[in-house]
Amino acid sequence: MFLLSSFCCAQNPDGFKPAFTNVWGAAYPRVDATGRAEFRVKAPDAAKVQVNFWGNPKLDMIKQSDGFWTVTSAPLVPGFHYYTLIVDGAEVSDPGSHTYFGGGKDASGIEIPEPGSTYYSAQDVPHGQVREVWYYSDVTGSWRHALVYTPPSYDTQPSLRYPVLYLQHGGGEDETGWIKQGHANFILDNLIASNNSKPMIIVMSYGYARRAGHLDADLAGKPFGSPEAMKAMQEMAQTFEDDLTQVLIPYIDSHFRTLPDRDHRAMAGLSMGGMQTFQVTFDHLDLFSYIGGFSGAAGQLVLGNRTLDPKTDFNGALADPAAFANRVHLLWLGVGTEEPAMMRAGLVRLHTSLDEAKVKHVFYESPGTSHEWQTWRRDLKDFAQRLFQGSSSKP
Amino acid sequence: MFLLSSFCCAQNPDGFKPAFTNVWGAAYPRVDATGRAEFRVKAPDAAKVQVNFWGNPKLDMIKQSDGFWTVTSAPLVPGFHYYTLIVDGAEVSDPGSHTYFGGGKDASGIEIPEPGSTYYSAQDVPHGQVREVWYYSDVTGSWRHALVYTPPSYDTQPSLRYPVLYLQHGGGEDETGWIKQGHANFILDNLIASNNSKPMIIVMSYGYARRAGHLDADLAGKPFGSPEAMKAMQEMAQTFEDDLTQVLIPYIDSHFRTLPDRDHRAMAGLSMGGMQTFQVTFDHLDLFSYIGGFSGAAGQLVLGNRTLDPKTDFNGALADPAAFANRVHLLWLGVGTEEPAMMRAGLVRLHTSLDEAKVKHVFYESPGTSHEWQTWRRDLKDFAQRLFQGSSSKP
Repeated sequence: MFLLSSFCCAQNPDGFKPAFTNVWGAAYPRVDATGRAEFRVKAPDAAKVQVNFWGNPKLDMIKQSDGFWTVTSAPLVPGFHYYTLIVDGAEVSDPGSHTYFGGGKDASGIEIPEPGSTYYSAQDVPHGQVREVWYYSDVTGSWRHALVYTPPSYDTQPSLRYPVLYLQHGGGEDETGWIKQGHANFILDNLIASNNSKPMIIVMSYGYARRAGHLDADLAGKPFGSPEAMKAMQEMAQTFEDDLTQVLIPYIDSHFRTLPDRDHRAMAGLSMGGMQTFQVTFDHLDLFSYIGGFSGAAGQLVLGNRTLDPKTDFNGALADPAAFANRVHLLWLGVGTEEPAMMRAGLVRLHTSLDEAKVKHVFYESPGTSHEWQTWRRDLKDFAQRLFQGSSSKP
Repeated sequence: MFLLSSFCCAQNPDGFKPAFTNVWGAAYPRVDATGRAEFRVKAPDAAKVQVNFWGNPKLDMIKQSDGFWTVTSAPLVPGFHYYTLIVDGAEVSDPGSHTYFGGGKDASGIEIPEPGSTYYSAQDVPHGQVREVWYYSDVTGSWRHALVYTPPSYDTQPSLRYPVLYLQHGGGEDETGWIKQGHANFILDNLIASNNSKPMIIVMSYGYARRAGHLDADLAGKPFGSPEAMKAMQEMAQTFEDDLTQVLIPYIDSHFRTLPDRDHRAMAGLSMGGMQTFQVTFDHLDLFSYIGGFSGAAGQLVLGNRTLDPKTDFNGALADPAAFANRVHLLWLGVGTEEPAMMRAGLVRLHTSLDEAKVKHVFYESPGTSHEWQTWRRDLKDFAQRLFQGSSSKP
């Protein structure tokens, strides 16, 4: 994220150069034109060091005589990849890389350039701002942190009001993900500059919430998938929904120049955030008219291995497809072609079910990518262009 | 920085609770009321694991039968402390803590509460915003990132214009330090709410700069203190000065509602940022009228073991103390009572020299703290109250 990441070193003769995601002055990790990444870390007294790209086989690093360990990966898919190092059993971040909140911790990340893609990097176009806001939530009994993207014209055209997209991160990530990993600000700057998106505000909120006073809603120590964990997750999801609809939306509408109605309000999210989006929006069609699920949508349908029942699912909102299409301007689903089988099958099944029920929607497949940020950058690029087309920013 | 840091666990029976700086759900590190910190990390195959509070003796962790290593520190000074773990010779961050950019990497940090201090935490007062901006610099030939604090009234009183404080981080840190480590936004929110500070804009910029096309200005590989490293540092300092004065200030004055004159412009910084402040402001007294050095000021005087010559130092600006006091509304120096001897002696000597030269200034000593963020939070609290007192925000 910091442009001086390649501060240190000119391109290496063998074609490797420091990754964009490195800290200032770090020569490693470095990347070549084929997408291979070379790692190097000092661990003079370690017996075993590995590079761990989550969900992939670990790469054994080789100890060199100077106390550094090195390894070069096979070519990686372009985009952002989380990784960690495993040093004698300790899973830690690489001091050469910046950290990115994922997997519930500040993990390392490496950016593999995508040849020819400029849509998610800083270009010579007007730039919006990303603003940190703190709001007090009576629902959670705590101060909560959100990031708000304002489009380039926001401060120069103080009489305009803007539509709003609520955009959620995935499980294990936080409200910083769409900016640091996703580059949502640059994606919108570029789309707005080329007149492919309407200027809009984007609100990125913290996707976890514990109801005030409810200590037992914690997930810690509850086995994944256990009834206790499921109950805690449901309570967290409902608390998140209440915070978003009862506190955050009124806060945003009173602190930013929004168009505060359902025709000018969208919600989307990735993975867990997509599931949250479907829960929140279908519970509150009075508040939202654009819905996006990026590698995640209705949890029970996508992960639960059953087909849609339009009469009962989504509170029956799909029972009359024509009425639904009138009411909801966009229902959007996306999935990468290389996603894990269950996720991909679930989203394809939901798409097919919607087709069979004649529910108008968009289904987008990201070629060659898995459950990863490159999929979600592409999703946002497509989704954002379809938002608020019936309406401009208004005085 | 994230308020759900203590999401996981109620207070432990023995009085330890998760540190404010932990990631969501992490039970360790945890802190007790005396300021002791207990660390725990999984490293089942390691032979030696230590906790490294920079500048202090390392703490040896003890291996437990479950593959975790633990240690409890002696009571720590209240405030924010950087630390790392050393796992079989690899210096890495603690996965239980959020990371904070310091020492040239995303390092771990732990917050030790200061009993009774509320001035640097989120209170029930109006909150300003922290905005990320990107600006293109012809000086560096790159896009650069800065953070801008806008006071609570900025969006609600759109006819007001505000004075600006340029506030710099220390060496090895970056533009995020004053918010994430320093809580500058909360310090100002609280001071403004109690009418102890004028509402102001604060600009925090990236303190490193390489002139466009000058690849040889890199520090990497040049021995610390060597002539080559000194030359590279001087070039970096001059490039930073040019970027700040020729690009960033015009950018801020054209993108924010500032009072764009020297009477409403201050600069301060900590450590390296204090040295940069003295260089930039004394080179440009046409641009600045408030000057603050927090544990760092004029490099040659503070670190060079010589006394001030008011006739020649600072371009002779102090030769006529009365004229200087008319021109510069505030010259402010601060240092912690427990700072390393050379830094403390240098700043005390500069203060004494200024007294002898009858140069009006403020000298503040932070009791019981060293070269650390608690010193700089206190510095900002004192400094900010003295800024722009002759002037209000103006329409």
